[in-house]
Amino acid sequence: MRVLLALGGNALTAQGRARPEDQIAAARVATTGVAELVADGVDVVITHGNGPQVGNLLVKNEIAASVVPPVPLDWCVAQTQATLGFVLMNTLDAALRSRDVDRRTATVVTRVLVDLDDPGFANPSKPIGRYLPREDAALLVQHGETWQDRGERGWRRVVASPEPREILDAATVHTLVEAGFVVVANGGGGVPVVRSGEDSDEVRGVEAVIDKDLGAALLARTVHADVLVIATDVPNAVLRLGTPEAEPLGRVDVRRLRALAAEGHFAGGSMGPKVEAACRFVEQGGARAVITSLEHIADAVSGDDAGTVLT
Amino acid sequence: MRVLLALGGNALTAQGRARPEDQIAAARVATTGVAELVADGVDVVITHGNGPQVGNLLVKNEIAASVVPPVPLDWCVAQTQATLGFVLMNTLDAALRSRDVDRRTATVVTRVLVDLDDPGFANPSKPIGRYLPREDAALLVQHGETWQDRGERGWRRVVASPEPREILDAATVHTLVEAGFVVVANGGGGVPVVRSGEDSDEVRGVEAVIDKDLGAALLARTVHADVLVIATDVPNAVLRLGTPEAEPLGRVDVRRLRALAAEGHFAGGSMGPKVEAACRFVEQGGARAVITSLEHIADAVSGDDAGTVLT
Repeated sequence: MRVLLALGGNALTAQGRARPEDQIAAARVATTGVAELVADGVDVVITHGNGPQVGNLLVKNEIAASVVPPVPLDWCVAQTQATLGFVLMNTLDAALRSRDVDRRTATVVTRVLVDLDDPGFANPSKPIGRYLPREDAALLVQHGETWQDRGERGWRRVVASPEPREILDAATVHTLVEAGFVVVANGGGGVPVVRSGEDSDEVRGVEAVIDKDLGAALLARTVHADVLVIATDVPNAVLRLGTPEAEPLGRVDVRRLRALAAEGHFAGGSMGPKVEAACRFVEQGGARAVITSLEHIADAVSGDDAGTVLT
Repeated sequence: MRVLLALGGNALTAQGRARPEDQIAAARVATTGVAELVADGVDVVITHGNGPQVGNLLVKNEIAASVVPPVPLDWCVAQTQATLGFVLMNTLDAALRSRDVDRRTATVVTRVLVDLDDPGFANPSKPIGRYLPREDAALLVQHGETWQDRGERGWRRVVASPEPREILDAATVHTLVEAGFVVVANGGGGVPVVRSGEDSDEVRGVEAVIDKDLGAALLARTVHADVLVIATDVPNAVLRLGTPEAEPLGRVDVRRLRALAAEGHFAGGSMGPKVEAACRFVEQGGARAVITSLEHIADAVSGDDAGTVLT
């Protein structure tokens, strides 16, 4: 069995703190469930979010801009692929060795092709980085960035979140999985690139962030995963969230899940893209998608009694 | 034939500038020779320096430290592996496609085991990052860093440059090379890690930088490269450099090269580690090591008429 596991970026920090030691401690927790799966003989590909981590890099860019040339957002995504991959490999290698499992880990810098005419570029909507007062935001708007008034916390930069079209480094991931590696790939949704021109052979990075769960669904199909597990901070997707009739959602089929999504059950927070990613994976031939919390990863793969299970 | 190509960190900037666009332009130049080799059917593994790039990251760390948690030096190295790998893949993919070569590129986050009792940790000697006035350096010394008075340019941080003992992700690189990928790996000498404890299964990053050329020699042997090419900004190692009797060194054997090194011919600048790396590679069974400039990469592999050639 082959599993694509998508870890939330917040699952790799401690209560939103993203100090290196917090990320390492969080990775130890996250990789315990992964090691169980691998010990059971499951092929695992791990992808991960990077919101808090990329936010930190953007702040460094801003603060140091007068001394050090800022790097583009796509480079920041690549940087988080390396650091989170490094941390995940170290903790997972240890967890595997302590279980006498003779499998190795690998981290692949992963690029994802997007369309430059994706509507996301005309209407950037994905908030990233820190909140700033209006005056500071105005300065950055003059430098070509898009910032939005987010109410009392201040202004925040928004960028395009285009559709992932093709995982350019999928063959690398596939080769390593087939060779028995536990692979960390496509972190932060992948480093977004576009073709440099119509007849160009070269791709170049773009200022955008790809939704991590939609990237995970695409990668899962590309590497022929049987199961997509989207690990988040709640055990289930919840219907009527925030009302007295709130109800965790268990086993469901795509038709019903799409209908529930259309009714607006998952509109708030980050559950929407997770539900969309799960639906896409199963619609395109994946056997099963599960949305659940970190501690239920192994259960989510082995049975139907954990999480929101889509078949 | 299999070649390990080590690109200097300065070769990936423009006259020492490390803006993203400079790095991309420099990568285009560097990868032209690589594409020629690959088109000729040679397996190529690329490693690269990262001095200017890691220097920039350290400065960002310092300047933004009161707002964003600084990340350790090993994370900075990992970050440069990702960004330089990203840039090299994009330019090399394009160069290969324009030659109708059907081979893919891959970038591997690469860790290298070092010994915590390496003498380098007791006597840090590798200068990194920017020069600072004495007062600023003194503050960082209080935070546990080692800084040295470098004369009129100011003070500079020095860190350990320990011996690379084992490329932990060598199997990943080897698997991908065998599958036909052009692999970018072990950038910046590798992300330095140590065992967390005597009986520990876990490795952790350490504040150090591994010499890129010594890391390249180790990786070259590990992936069974036939030739190690160390690309730098001069066409040859030079005897009596800076004197009227300066003489470029061509074909040489290990015994003579070691004798010349012992006489101090390569003590200044960065040629010393390159000569040491070339000697180690050939002593440990490698067929040939060449030290030359970027534009002679292809010649260095195919013949004996370019560079300092060690057999």
